[in-house]
Amino acid sequence: MAEAVAELIDLRSDTVTRPTPAMRRAMAEAEVGDDVYGEDPAIRALEERVADLFGHEAALFVPSGTMGNQIGMRLVCEPGQEVLCDADAHVVTYEMGAAAAVFGISTRTVVSAGGLLDADALVDQVRPRGDWHLTATAAVAVENTHNRGGGRVQPLAELQRLWDWSRGAGVAVHLDGARIWNASIAAGVDLATYGRLADTASVCLSKGLGAPVGSVLVASAERIAVGRLWRKRLGGGMRQAGVLAAAGSYALDHHLARLAEDHEHARLLAKRLGVDPATVETNMVVVDDVPAPVVAEAAKAQGVLVSQVSPRRVRLVTHLDVDRAAVERAGDVLAALLDR
Amino acid sequence: MAEAVAELIDLRSDTVTRPTPAMRRAMAEAEVGDDVYGEDPAIRALEERVADLFGHEAALFVPSGTMGNQIGMRLVCEPGQEVLCDADAHVVTYEMGAAAAVFGISTRTVVSAGGLLDADALVDQVRPRGDWHLTATAAVAVENTHNRGGGRVQPLAELQRLWDWSRGAGVAVHLDGARIWNASIAAGVDLATYGRLADTASVCLSKGLGAPVGSVLVASAERIAVGRLWRKRLGGGMRQAGVLAAAGSYALDHHLARLAEDHEHARLLAKRLGVDPATVETNMVVVDDVPAPVVAEAAKAQGVLVSQVSPRRVRLVTHLDVDRAAVERAGDVLAALLDR
Amino acid sequence: MAEAVAELIDLRSDTVTRPTPAMRRAMAEAEVGDDVYGEDPAIRALEERVADLFGHEAALFVPSGTMGNQIGMRLVCEPGQEVLCDADAHVVTYEMGAAAAVFGISTRTVVSAGGLLDADALVDQVRPRGDWHLTATAAVAVENTHNRGGGRVQPLAELQRLWDWSRGAGVAVHLDGARIWNASIAAGVDLATYGRLADTASVCLSKGLGAPVGSVLVASAERIAVGRLWRKRLGGGMRQAGVLAAAGSYALDHHLARLAEDHEHARLLAKRLGVDPATVETNMVVVDDVPAPVVAEAAKAQGVLVSQVSPRRVRLVTHLDVDRAAVERAGDVLAALLDR
Amino acid sequence: MAEAVAELIDLRSDTVTRPTPAMRRAMAEAEVGDDVYGEDPAIRALEERVADLFGHEAALFVPSGTMGNQIGMRLVCEPGQEVLCDADAHVVTYEMGAAAAVFGISTRTVVSAGGLLDADALVDQVRPRGDWHLTATAAVAVENTHNRGGGRVQPLAELQRLWDWSRGAGVAVHLDGARIWNASIAAGVDLATYGRLADTASVCLSKGLGAPVGSVLVASAERIAVGRLWRKRLGGGMRQAGVLAAAGSYALDHHLARLAEDHEHARLLAKRLGVDPATVETNMVVVDDVPAPVVAEAAKAQGVLVSQVSPRRVRLVTHLDVDRAAVERAGDVLAALLDR
Repeated sequence: MAEAVAELIDLRSDTVTRPTPAMRRAMAEAEVGDDVYGEDPAIRALEERVADLFGHEAALFVPSGTMGNQIGMRLVCEPGQEVLCDADAHVVTYEMGAAAAVFGISTRTVVSAGGLLDADALVDQVRPRGDWHLTATAAVAVENTHNRGGGRVQPLAELQRLWDWSRGAGVAVHLDGARIWNASIAAGVDLATYGRLADTASVCLSKGLGAPVGSVLVASAERIAVGRLWRKRLGGGMRQAGVLAAAGSYALDHHLARLAEDHEHARLLAKRLGVDPATVETNMVVVDDVPAPVVAEAAKAQGVLVSQVSPRRVRLVTHLDVDRAAVERAGDVLAALLDR
Repeated sequence: MAEAVAELIDLRSDTVTRPTPAMRRAMAEAEVGDDVYGEDPAIRALEERVADLFGHEAALFVPSGTMGNQIGMRLVCEPGQEVLCDADAHVVTYEMGAAAAVFGISTRTVVSAGGLLDADALVDQVRPRGDWHLTATAAVAVENTHNRGGGRVQPLAELQRLWDWSRGAGVAVHLDGARIWNASIAAGVDLATYGRLADTASVCLSKGLGAPVGSVLVASAERIAVGRLWRKRLGGGMRQAGVLAAAGSYALDHHLARLAEDHEHARLLAKRLGVDPATVETNMVVVDDVPAPVVAEAAKAQGVLVSQVSPRRVRLVTHLDVDRAAVERAGDVLAALLDR
Repeated sequence: MAEAVAELIDLRSDTVTRPTPAMRRAMAEAEVGDDVYGEDPAIRALEERVADLFGHEAALFVPSGTMGNQIGMRLVCEPGQEVLCDADAHVVTYEMGAAAAVFGISTRTVVSAGGLLDADALVDQVRPRGDWHLTATAAVAVENTHNRGGGRVQPLAELQRLWDWSRGAGVAVHLDGARIWNASIAAGVDLATYGRLADTASVCLSKGLGAPVGSVLVASAERIAVGRLWRKRLGGGMRQAGVLAAAGSYALDHHLARLAEDHEHARLLAKRLGVDPATVETNMVVVDDVPAPVVAEAAKAQGVLVSQVSPRRVRLVTHLDVDRAAVERAGDVLAALLDR
Repeated sequence: MAEAVAELIDLRSDTVTRPTPAMRRAMAEAEVGDDVYGEDPAIRALEERVADLFGHEAALFVPSGTMGNQIGMRLVCEPGQEVLCDADAHVVTYEMGAAAAVFGISTRTVVSAGGLLDADALVDQVRPRGDWHLTATAAVAVENTHNRGGGRVQPLAELQRLWDWSRGAGVAVHLDGARIWNASIAAGVDLATYGRLADTASVCLSKGLGAPVGSVLVASAERIAVGRLWRKRLGGGMRQAGVLAAAGSYALDHHLARLAEDHEHARLLAKRLGVDPATVETNMVVVDDVPAPVVAEAAKAQGVLVSQVSPRRVRLVTHLDVDRAAVERAGDVLAALLDR
């Protein structure tokens, strides 16, 4: 089976990366402790490092981006209040209604082109606290890069405008930074710059960075202390989780700068498939107006896995486990299938 | 104070009606019991009557339309699932995030013109059960007449299309029938016809019908039994509530047919104010592109109360406590203010 | 039917009282408005009066004692925290798990003799905030008089001890004062005295006081403002609810002092049935070690309704609709049945 | 630091074990995939194995025992219903009110001696479904071995009596089997025997078995499918979690039978400290009537860590990282401190 797997070119998502031998060695050698007692040195080191990277006081290692996002939003929004976001945001599309189900938080959405933040459109929908009928808007959530938007990078100026407005309005900003690394590399913007435009941010180690498991939530020390209680309550408190944190730390050391390669690979694929390169800002290529199930099936038969975002849309994601040769081979297979 | 109040013409909403002397007599003479024990004859009679009117097996008296809608949606949607509705629906706009906060239900919205149901647009957004990422769509909610849409009546054919589709799809339909009475009178459609196109429906006695307090939820006997437990759990179980039910029964006897007057009054107002009469299907008149706070303030100074739906939109609602003379006087005041 | 009903002597609960003709007149003449807009004069008057009676800043009229208790506890306890109370407390026994289901609040209980507050036992169970494993105890709830304890009055000294301790501990006190009127009359303790030993208190108009519907929650103005939002969210916002408030105000005027009669009637019944009068402090008589279903059935056949608290316990409650003659008749019927 | 750590004898809990070199190798060599897509072979193999061990159809790997217990209870209890358990149960003591906060489930407790199941006492407290006031009891939870009871093993006959009763009563049984391995080894009872006396069971890999992270929930295939959705919703869906599962599988291969050693070590400690050996059934020793903070501090100064369960109770837990020599040394240190 291992052989067959090795031959597959899996472009469904950057979540499918498997830890490299060197990363596995780092995990095997990790110095660990009981993180529920706050005694895992590998976890502590990773949390401090990520907090620093984003210019926040504190951080919390969580088992998934969903837990990072949902606790992050809970820290800035009370039950009965709402979080406003883009209609295609991951937090409302792919997190199984957790905000409502787990936290009693309403989500309300604004349609935006390609998921790109339109600060005015969001602000226009904000509702005040204390009204007798309306659900008060406590926070807005922004996703960067935007998954369903095809990996688009949020314009820094627009993030800044939202942030400036939010300070006066008493509305918090949560950053779903599952792929903030890709945004940073692609736009040449510092992680700390993104970090200081958000009250809470969740960033993932298990996507482009290639770690097997884990995300990190950053915020103020006070909020993280509360978040730690929620993590335990949700069942996210793990014991010798340092084996996972070691992978995350290794990924930050070795897999961050190389995201530029994934982006180049994506542009290569786009070109090969006749997709407008202007739409390919990071590691995703969206092919529209194709019979997605047919394409996916045919590609799979030739060893290339793609994801079907909708019946007429296919998505290709480049990542650590797909090198240039594989990208070229996938390009050939798909170009032939799509007759491009 | 009573005198001053009498002189005000209150067009803010049809919720402001005060019980008439005859209705008060009916309340004072009501035969009552302890409804938490299921022993209030006036409540039971009203529940049976409303269930019959809508062709459902059973009904439940609740203190408000919000409770009727929210329990109604809960009966057809589990925590972690979602209800899909129009972006301007009362259930997501004016019910304080109850679906999420109280029941763990996500709401997701589709923008529609004037709140009018576009079955295809809703259906297009429905998400399947059992997916690993997506929030499953368990129900759609339709509001008839549509409050923020200006009292528009949902087209029967579209309701029927939604219903027909829903049966095959395993998706339930909840009717927010706060003003279903107005729809029925305006469109000449039987209440039972509306009733059979919904799995659960909440209808209000305290709006156009003029009762002081109360709504009724209709559904299958099995669902109402569960709803009765939720009513208790939410604190909606009342003791000798028959005094309120008596007002509701009186309203059904005496105030249903007369809604046609309110509709005529609304058209009168629209004409006077140069509002397109085609947009006035029931008891609401929406005046757009006016400085709402200024208009509301100036009108109030002359004894006419209107509501501000947005900074540039004013809403006038006709009802039992506003007779033709009052409507004409309000029309004069507002026409002068708006220079029409 | 009215006749048959009139002949029944209903000792199941003091919730079964029907409004008197004079109370109905007060309701019929009530000056009302739209309370969701805060414009119902009868509601406002009642809220102010009850707040004053208990020495609190503000009050909120709610449709039931369950809503009063549950919102009251929510105002002093966050989701994920716990309320500690007696194992037989109404809030955990008869309110359908609302604290958890609606608010995400855990309840934990301490067994106490006859429901009587043992401050030390409660305090001993309190758990600190901020622990990584334990549910933090945010509040304790005390019921006075204690329903399942047979209407016992909580000793003032013990209430005071709990209160004094709570101030230093940062733990709030909620009073379930459904029958606080009975406690006040029986113990000769001012309502304000009870009021100042609680952060939030819910008091019922629909039990001994004989109003058909409604309870009042008292607390600080800031908390009541939040509570008002929760009342709306739960569906407890009612329109011309002044018809109900008028009954409550009438009850405070006319039915408070007369509770002494109910207490005397209860002692009379106890004596007749050989129940230790020391256990009868207010309007309840508990008869133990009897076959409850058999007794209830046989009594009903002779026109006397009693409630079955457990298979071996019957409860009799005196109230406004049971005069001395009825009490004596019921005593005769039951004494014969119980062979006492 | 590694050296210093190595010298400490940590008897606080069996959760503090660090993965052995061989276990780390197994992790480093694990064949993994994306478990959110259901494609991680190491996870699948572990889930199938654990399901088989307990005689259930299916299993779900979760990041913690808290998540396993809470999802397990949710699968057999709806919001608004209650789970009944022992007052000292882990699920109500150490899981931060998750049942209420996350799922809207009430918990109610019965005091039992040493946490040992008294089926009659539990059954006596069960409340029926469909009542207008009472929270319905949907499930009972049993903990085996019982943590706060000092690692006591639940008597098989009592588990069987509860199970037999539950089938007729329509009440589900959840097993908190965090340390079921210890029970099985100590009592010589098959895991499958315990498994067939529960509808849902959560078992931990990260305690006595010595894996760094993870628990497994077992139940019917239908329930596990729902549980998988809840795991995702709670943020417990992990990607290449096979690195953790590999540790779990290794632990089942190599660390199960050796629990007998931990039990022997615990008895040794008990003897040395004058604790009644009858109370030491598995890997825990409870020392009562000692000044816990003083003892813990003094022991720590001599390199022995113990946990303070209460101000007068110290708990010692033996495990994989504490060999016989360490146990003897700890015994010497503590015996001297306790003057025994």
